[in-house]
Amino acid sequence: MYCLVKFAPLFLAVAVSNGWLFGDFVGKQKVLDEISLWPLPQKFQSSAVAFKLSPTRFQIVQAKQSSAGPSCSILENAFRRYFEYIFGDLKKPEKSRKKVYDSDLVELQVWVTSADPECDGFPSLQTDESYELSVDEPSAVLKAANVWGALRGLETFSQLVYEDDYGVNNINKTDISDFPRFAHRGILLDSYRHFLPLKVILANLEAMAMNKFNVFHWHIVDDHSFPYMSRTFPELSQKRKGAYHPFTHVYTPSDVKMVIEFARMRGIRVIPEFDTPGHTESWGTGIKDLLTPCYSGSSPSGTFGTVNPILNSSYDFMTQFFKEISTVFPDAYIHLGGDEVDFSCWESNPDIQKFMVQQGFGTDYSKLESFYIQRLLDIVAATKKGYMVWQEVFDNGVKLKDDTVVEVWMENKMEEELQNVTGAGFTTILSAPWYLDYISYGQDWQHYYKVEPLNFPGTDAQKKLVIGGEACLWGEYVDATNLTPRLWPRASAVAERLWSDKSVTDVDNAYNRLVQHRCRMVKRGIPAEPLFVGHCRQEYKGL
Amino acid sequence: MYCLVKFAPLFLAVAVSNGWLFGDFVGKQKVLDEISLWPLPQKFQSSAVAFKLSPTRFQIVQAKQSSAGPSCSILENAFRRYFEYIFGDLKKPEKSRKKVYDSDLVELQVWVTSADPECDGFPSLQTDESYELSVDEPSAVLKAANVWGALRGLETFSQLVYEDDYGVNNINKTDISDFPRFAHRGILLDSYRHFLPLKVILANLEAMAMNKFNVFHWHIVDDHSFPYMSRTFPELSQKRKGAYHPFTHVYTPSDVKMVIEFARMRGIRVIPEFDTPGHTESWGTGIKDLLTPCYSGSSPSGTFGTVNPILNSSYDFMTQFFKEISTVFPDAYIHLGGDEVDFSCWESNPDIQKFMVQQGFGTDYSKLESFYIQRLLDIVAATKKGYMVWQEVFDNGVKLKDDTVVEVWMENKMEEELQNVTGAGFTTILSAPWYLDYISYGQDWQHYYKVEPLNFPGTDAQKKLVIGGEACLWGEYVDATNLTPRLWPRASAVAERLWSDKSVTDVDNAYNRLVQHRCRMVKRGIPAEPLFVGHCRQEYKGL
Repeated sequence: MYCLVKFAPLFLAVAVSNGWLFGDFVGKQKVLDEISLWPLPQKFQSSAVAFKLSPTRFQIVQAKQSSAGPSCSILENAFRRYFEYIFGDLKKPEKSRKKVYDSDLVELQVWVTSADPECDGFPSLQTDESYELSVDEPSAVLKAANVWGALRGLETFSQLVYEDDYGVNNINKTDISDFPRFAHRGILLDSYRHFLPLKVILANLEAMAMNKFNVFHWHIVDDHSFPYMSRTFPELSQKRKGAYHPFTHVYTPSDVKMVIEFARMRGIRVIPEFDTPGHTESWGTGIKDLLTPCYSGSSPSGTFGTVNPILNSSYDFMTQFFKEISTVFPDAYIHLGGDEVDFSCWESNPDIQKFMVQQGFGTDYSKLESFYIQRLLDIVAATKKGYMVWQEVFDNGVKLKDDTVVEVWMENKMEEELQNVTGAGFTTILSAPWYLDYISYGQDWQHYYKVEPLNFPGTDAQKKLVIGGEACLWGEYVDATNLTPRLWPRASAVAERLWSDKSVTDVDNAYNRLVQHRCRMVKRGIPAEPLFVGHCRQEYKGL
Repeated sequence: MYCLVKFAPLFLAVAVSNGWLFGDFVGKQKVLDEISLWPLPQKFQSSAVAFKLSPTRFQIVQAKQSSAGPSCSILENAFRRYFEYIFGDLKKPEKSRKKVYDSDLVELQVWVTSADPECDGFPSLQTDESYELSVDEPSAVLKAANVWGALRGLETFSQLVYEDDYGVNNINKTDISDFPRFAHRGILLDSYRHFLPLKVILANLEAMAMNKFNVFHWHIVDDHSFPYMSRTFPELSQKRKGAYHPFTHVYTPSDVKMVIEFARMRGIRVIPEFDTPGHTESWGTGIKDLLTPCYSGSSPSGTFGTVNPILNSSYDFMTQFFKEISTVFPDAYIHLGGDEVDFSCWESNPDIQKFMVQQGFGTDYSKLESFYIQRLLDIVAATKKGYMVWQEVFDNGVKLKDDTVVEVWMENKMEEELQNVTGAGFTTILSAPWYLDYISYGQDWQHYYKVEPLNFPGTDAQKKLVIGGEACLWGEYVDATNLTPRLWPRASAVAERLWSDKSVTDVDNAYNRLVQHRCRMVKRGIPAEPLFVGHCRQEYKGL
């Protein structure tokens, strides 16, 4: 019972006293390898007793006691999705159920216990994703406070199922009690360096759910293109040099809705990032005077810099724009960026220079940056949204709301930054060690896996302020052709680090499970690349 | 006329005297960018005069004078393939041709000039791939000695076509005279570390033709698996631990035939590699006593090493096996490997030790290796095939047939090795700088592009012995999920190095053309990854 022995010795003691057949697993490594849970649950005990699942008899159903009824489409959809993951899409359940055999598992009952199952809600930072799963004949029971925990448990249930030598689906008697170590477990994709067709985004949301990620950080626009089609300011994506193409390379309001709903059905929050005042070159064509005119000597050079922070029109625009964003994206947070502001254009502009003098900023342009960010944050706060920012905003001393989430992305002095941000009482998420766009030869997933997010000097209270992390796949070198295999299963390493217990650090054990987990993703249609030499029972069918 | 000015100044002089409108291209960079020939032809002149191609009227036809008739299926298939590349698969040519307009190009006549067009033949190392292409109204003419040159010219013709602002296909008045710099332009794929489904191999043959590669070096079996299904020794792939799976992870005789025919239709040779005496672990389960029993002290350890070179049965097996291989694979060459032979098992075996003494080899096991290889080469020579070998076989002083091709793969002392191999009078191909399995962050295609294969000390006669090179994508980290985007367009850099003139070395110019070429591959269904930030008019539709 390798999972248990290695990772949960305390639980083992309890389990043995309950009479579980751990001893039976000696020599059954193969079966356990095929189970290959990923990420590893917090508490897990399994026995050698196995039940069979018949595609014509097995069902996933709402438990009678459950507060979620048949109208809970988020669960009904998930039941069908996981049935298909387990049995493939060729088999139909029969209407009249045939004889049930002794060793059959006939159903998984999903029991949502809270008065409000949140069927029509959205997951949030406060969402309780815990669940309890008990597999025993004739029924397995999955218990969770709400639909979000139920989704996580369904994924785990599907991972417990394995094919025996006859191709029959089996599942072992199992008890699991599980919850995430961190509340924010994200994937950042950028859709501006290369436009990502909707199909690619949806497939990666699927893969995220398979890895229990719960945040899609959508860095949707930036310097190179503005694919977000705004209802208030359609010219942002429609004008030349806004989006790469105003029809084929944009996300329409309906596309965005689809991403959000597809994510919601999988318990994934969508946090859009509209990064200002830097990273805004593509905004400039659509919105006159939004960007700062750069000067060459005493005359405008014809080029433009970051957002012009000295014009009221800039703030008027931001007010209207973020009003729209706050209604389009249901999540409580918007990511406002604030990173890598280049001062050179501001410095060249005589009007900006004058303003600096008036404000008493001297030549410290970071004060001007803070001036802008401060007003922007107030604008966004007025929409009742919380915000996330990159670490520079904190570093520059901008006054932040208490519920601000600071994202630490610079690997240099990472521990010091975590110490400072949490020392100032802010919640933080870590992405610095997980920039998956940096590729190298070999099994780099191990580097991501070995990161311990709380390995920085600080009090327990400070450690509690680290609410999670994000694997970032910036888009310089990826698009629809190669994004998915480059992300998976490398991001899976981050998934386990953010979900499983701190003690789950055995790389060899992780390798064995991850090999199987990546084949499971492949079987489900995700082109997750191989870790090393080997094969999957079902190889990828696409190109 | 950037191509010409930069790469063929002598030709420019001739061209200007012929009255071509080079001056007109000032300000027409956009059109030229969209043409984006890859690899760049040897001689190329184009004018600003453009003709339109109508999908309902334009045809690719056999020229009346051509020695290839309508029964030449290799051309008839190519005509349909390139028609589809140009117009997509939605449009049907009309039976009755409508009015032809003045500015129309109505047909491409393909004129094969040799008495034997080689319609039913196979390409070879001696194949003449040169062609002449003249685009003028009302007809373009493609002239080649045989179908192989015609295939190369068809690819070039299709690359000359570009869409104007109305989506209409245009082609400029153009004259091209083209031929490859090197005769052997290969891609090595290994199908043993990961099994590559047929679909993946065929797609990559398609991509190879788009880049004028002409050799598929199929490293089909090796230590980890034996997916080649032998008719003489079916047990090699059928027994446990031969192939990964005897049904789902093998290439049947019919699969192999399909690969060879699919490649032939695109002017690509298929050279299989059956690497011995090392790299043979997977052979051992099927063939009793083929591998050397390793010893631990005075008794067999239960493990096995490389092929047992002291048993006649080993040579009997090889004789029968390569007799089959020589009939299954039509190419004049077989790659026999011979690299990385580990002596430790031989050293441990008392029978081998005895044999060493009898032969007077002392403790020099490379002499035993040469003893084996020498006999193997004689066996293969008896099948009338030529052979390719990795550089170690030459380095160890094995006596090689005059027509042996030595493959230089070690990057360390590469120039010295090229000097030695060619100094000894052997033809050689270079793969050392083009191991595409080694990935790194950024635009590594530039490194591959900057290689000059003849940059080693040697006489002109020695330089002529370098007949080409290969881009190798070894399979540790690639399978169906990620092989294709990892190979393309990185291998395209090698394609141009091996086809175009030595003077074609401008990386910026190559970047501009390669960006368009990669989008062209994407449009044709190949998931070629992006070089850098940007977009394709038609993004990849798959995952």
